[in-house]
Amino acid sequence: MPATGEPANIESFYKFKDDVSDPKLFETWKPKIQAYRDALDKNTLTEYRVPESDIPSDLDDKIFNTVEFLSATKALTDKEKEITSTSASDLTAKIASKEYSSVDVLKAFAHRAVILQQFTNFAMDFFIHEGLKRAEELDAYLAKEGKTVGPLHGLPISLKEQIGYAGKITNGGWVAWLDNIPKEDATTIKTLRKLGATFFVRTNQPQSLMHLDSNNNIIGRSRNPYNSLLTPGGSSGGEGACVAGRGSAIGVGTDIGGSIRSPAAFSGCYGLRPTSRRISCLGGVSSGKGQESVVAVAGPITNSVADINLFMKSYINEGKPWDDDPWCIPVLWREVPEPSPKDVTVAILYDDGLVKPHPPIARGLEFVESKLKAAGVNVVKFDPLDIQEAFDIVNEMYSCDGNHAQKEMIRPSGEPLLPMTKWALSFGNGDKMYNVTENRELNYRRDALRKKYLDYFTKEKVDFIISPTYVGCAPASINDGVAGPFYWGYTTLFNILDLPTLVFPTGLKQDPKVDVKDTTYTPRSALDKIEQDKYIPELFEGAPICFQLSARRYFDEEVVAFGKVIENIIN
Amino acid sequence: MPATGEPANIESFYKFKDDVSDPKLFETWKPKIQAYRDALDKNTLTEYRVPESDIPSDLDDKIFNTVEFLSATKALTDKEKEITSTSASDLTAKIASKEYSSVDVLKAFAHRAVILQQFTNFAMDFFIHEGLKRAEELDAYLAKEGKTVGPLHGLPISLKEQIGYAGKITNGGWVAWLDNIPKEDATTIKTLRKLGATFFVRTNQPQSLMHLDSNNNIIGRSRNPYNSLLTPGGSSGGEGACVAGRGSAIGVGTDIGGSIRSPAAFSGCYGLRPTSRRISCLGGVSSGKGQESVVAVAGPITNSVADINLFMKSYINEGKPWDDDPWCIPVLWREVPEPSPKDVTVAILYDDGLVKPHPPIARGLEFVESKLKAAGVNVVKFDPLDIQEAFDIVNEMYSCDGNHAQKEMIRPSGEPLLPMTKWALSFGNGDKMYNVTENRELNYRRDALRKKYLDYFTKEKVDFIISPTYVGCAPASINDGVAGPFYWGYTTLFNILDLPTLVFPTGLKQDPKVDVKDTTYTPRSALDKIEQDKYIPELFEGAPICFQLSARRYFDEEVVAFGKVIENIIN
Repeated sequence: MPATGEPANIESFYKFKDDVSDPKLFETWKPKIQAYRDALDKNTLTEYRVPESDIPSDLDDKIFNTVEFLSATKALTDKEKEITSTSASDLTAKIASKEYSSVDVLKAFAHRAVILQQFTNFAMDFFIHEGLKRAEELDAYLAKEGKTVGPLHGLPISLKEQIGYAGKITNGGWVAWLDNIPKEDATTIKTLRKLGATFFVRTNQPQSLMHLDSNNNIIGRSRNPYNSLLTPGGSSGGEGACVAGRGSAIGVGTDIGGSIRSPAAFSGCYGLRPTSRRISCLGGVSSGKGQESVVAVAGPITNSVADINLFMKSYINEGKPWDDDPWCIPVLWREVPEPSPKDVTVAILYDDGLVKPHPPIARGLEFVESKLKAAGVNVVKFDPLDIQEAFDIVNEMYSCDGNHAQKEMIRPSGEPLLPMTKWALSFGNGDKMYNVTENRELNYRRDALRKKYLDYFTKEKVDFIISPTYVGCAPASINDGVAGPFYWGYTTLFNILDLPTLVFPTGLKQDPKVDVKDTTYTPRSALDKIEQDKYIPELFEGAPICFQLSARRYFDEEVVAFGKVIENIIN
Repeated sequence: MPATGEPANIESFYKFKDDVSDPKLFETWKPKIQAYRDALDKNTLTEYRVPESDIPSDLDDKIFNTVEFLSATKALTDKEKEITSTSASDLTAKIASKEYSSVDVLKAFAHRAVILQQFTNFAMDFFIHEGLKRAEELDAYLAKEGKTVGPLHGLPISLKEQIGYAGKITNGGWVAWLDNIPKEDATTIKTLRKLGATFFVRTNQPQSLMHLDSNNNIIGRSRNPYNSLLTPGGSSGGEGACVAGRGSAIGVGTDIGGSIRSPAAFSGCYGLRPTSRRISCLGGVSSGKGQESVVAVAGPITNSVADINLFMKSYINEGKPWDDDPWCIPVLWREVPEPSPKDVTVAILYDDGLVKPHPPIARGLEFVESKLKAAGVNVVKFDPLDIQEAFDIVNEMYSCDGNHAQKEMIRPSGEPLLPMTKWALSFGNGDKMYNVTENRELNYRRDALRKKYLDYFTKEKVDFIISPTYVGCAPASINDGVAGPFYWGYTTLFNILDLPTLVFPTGLKQDPKVDVKDTTYTPRSALDKIEQDKYIPELFEGAPICFQLSARRYFDEEVVAFGKVIENIIN
């Protein structure tokens, strides 16, 4: 197994004492896990697979690029490649004009997704026959009525598994939830179905939903489609792999600490963490019931900014999720024209002062800066603003119920805790249960922080902040993910602030020859050391380099509009 | 002193054991209280007052109607009466066209407000000279520039005292906060000033801000302008009295349990509790820092629906509070046309099943029903939906910090607890400090309740709910307010649901001869008995009868548009 730079003595960082795992109890759950895996295997349709001989046996020992394989393979027809390489925006137009049928589109994506699964293990649940039946109905409707059922007619959308799906196991990555079969679809599924979307695959996520990787005790880890040793991110990591591998036209993830943005960034996609209350989270499995200090949001992962816009506009303006979920605000998605670069001021965060970004990230930011400047954008440096405070608050918020909810999700199965779960349960004060007054104090500190950032935007006349999505490119997920993503500060900043944040790819990839290690750097802290030790240049070969674009709260439309400008500038 | 039907053995209801009052300590604060009262007295300009001989000495023993006095008195000129009787919407037009000057308008309201103060004690803070100076500046600006500074140019707006005002004591009704002088204005004050409003008076509120009356240890109780024995409501009760007495053109209150609606209803005004996050609460004094299970909102109290609309539209669309307060959502106030009555379905809640409304409220609802039906509105009965659950959740939320925040506001002064404060501190589980998990469970129950109500609106195709604002008309506030408003369930329902709710007057008043007591009724509970015992018909003579109009979350504009229809139907 290749070196991953995993931290020594990681146990010394654990603040989590109360380990509710129970090997004996877990033993009794193994048949249920096996049955789940068997069903997944059975539903990964044999007729869509490539021969086992095509799959390297050393995927976990040697870098393998599944994206390249999928481009080259003859197992997919040219037509299937054409369809799966078409943007969601173009696909919906071509389906509406009958150039493609919904069935052809679903088949092409399902075929590609099955092969992608063979290499990356991104999926938890396939139901291709159901998807095809729905696609047939959509085709019949269009033929008969001469119109689509909605703006996403025939579009195959993948779903993070935690989103409650009526009649299907919805486990959220917890073994004990293999018994959970919702009676009703989540609002997001109802909404997308109403708009004409087709479903055939639900995707992988980590135990606890609180890793920035996707590894659990049910189906194990997913692999990054660009580099099989690395994680596709998390917690919506299956979505990142799926969309990057073009196993679906659009993916839907959720994000409470980076769970849309890490997958998008690690797998080289676009991903939007919208401001809260725009896309529904009602009806999912999570440990966050009633927690509103730092709230989860749902949002799209795509291969273009136009597709982010398609999803948001359709979901909100025609989906009207507020008719089903009282948490969603009835505010339409605004048409915001692309701004002229010279009218825009962007502040770039090169280093948050706590954990220094790895060489490929530093290179990527210089690239973005030079591209933006060349296009006429006013670029300024964003000096870290209360980063330690933001990091402290959000980490305390994650664990301020003394991890009670997490423990109650894990306890019934006694499943063993994965390394990244132990890390997540050590956030803040670990097992300490806060009282209401202590929780309110955190909220109050959060609100003071939000005020500071708002004043920064308004007083400095800054329109957008660009920042690293993580310290580095996707880290390794082999060896139980012990060298996974430890430092979340670059993404959690925008959760605690609740700012709309778009991840965009630069097109750049890590290159061991260019992105050499700075051996003279002295880490600022133990946490910084953990992250720096993981930078082993040859491990990351081919990993995408992506960044975050953030704006003021509820300026989601502006983020997407300027994201389109950046996409044009970079390409 | 007249009989008020105060409950016997009220102590048996108290769940609040930890009384932080301290008579010795309080003694040391009395000079500061006296200084505050002296300043108030001094700033209640002598030249604007009526002679003491005009004021009955038995205001607390015999019903006195200040509204009638103000209409009849010769102390106000006809011009002053004309100005103060003009709607805010018309006033801004007349100031803009120079028919009235800002100075004339301010003087008229200040004059009337001073007299109103002599009878009702509605104000905590007058600063008329400052207001006049500002009005002069506005007049000069208009003369020079030929345009107004904003849509509220020259409009005298009264402010609940808790709203932080730079350079002025902001006590929120707590004695210990007589030392608090904010350096910066609250967002709402900044916003209204930017729009052209003038300020000259800040208004009374109860100790703890958690009574539906306005009584405190600083300046004592305010009197209802229609009936001096009764309360003008609370906690924004000073505002209710002020607007009803036309001491200001518009009042600004806040509401976490009925604190805008009770004053509006008890004093016969219009009052809007907007959905959360539309009007800023940043910069006020309260016990609610970081509490977000049931959030406070700010909103207007007025004499017409058009004025509610003027305030909301100006404040939001031109004030843009989200540039200063990150909690506010940047969503414009929509222009919603008045619906045709025949297109509207209204569900009326006649009785919530817990505490039965008094005879004048029952009569008022029948009146409203018949008026709406005659106009073609589809009226249905609203069967109580989980009222007990709503009542339980909200009451637990109020006290789930074990009243910690309240105690820390009271403790430094040792001020004695007023009866209604003891009642408020006994909500839910009183002194019990909840932990984070217990708080989240409450939030989760709240969200389930919101979902039920949303489904009711959408599935039953109901546009609006009309309901009592309280069990009865304004209750008595004499005798320390021991017969005050105990049951909050009719207003708190819409706080826990966060539904936009407009209070509207029917024009009806309580009439002891018509609204006779039903002596055959057997109370459903001890709480019901407390409220029924208080119904002594002759006590309430002349008290206004008002109701609440609620719609779906963020349908504030629809509530106001249909409120206008109701206003037209009733008049």
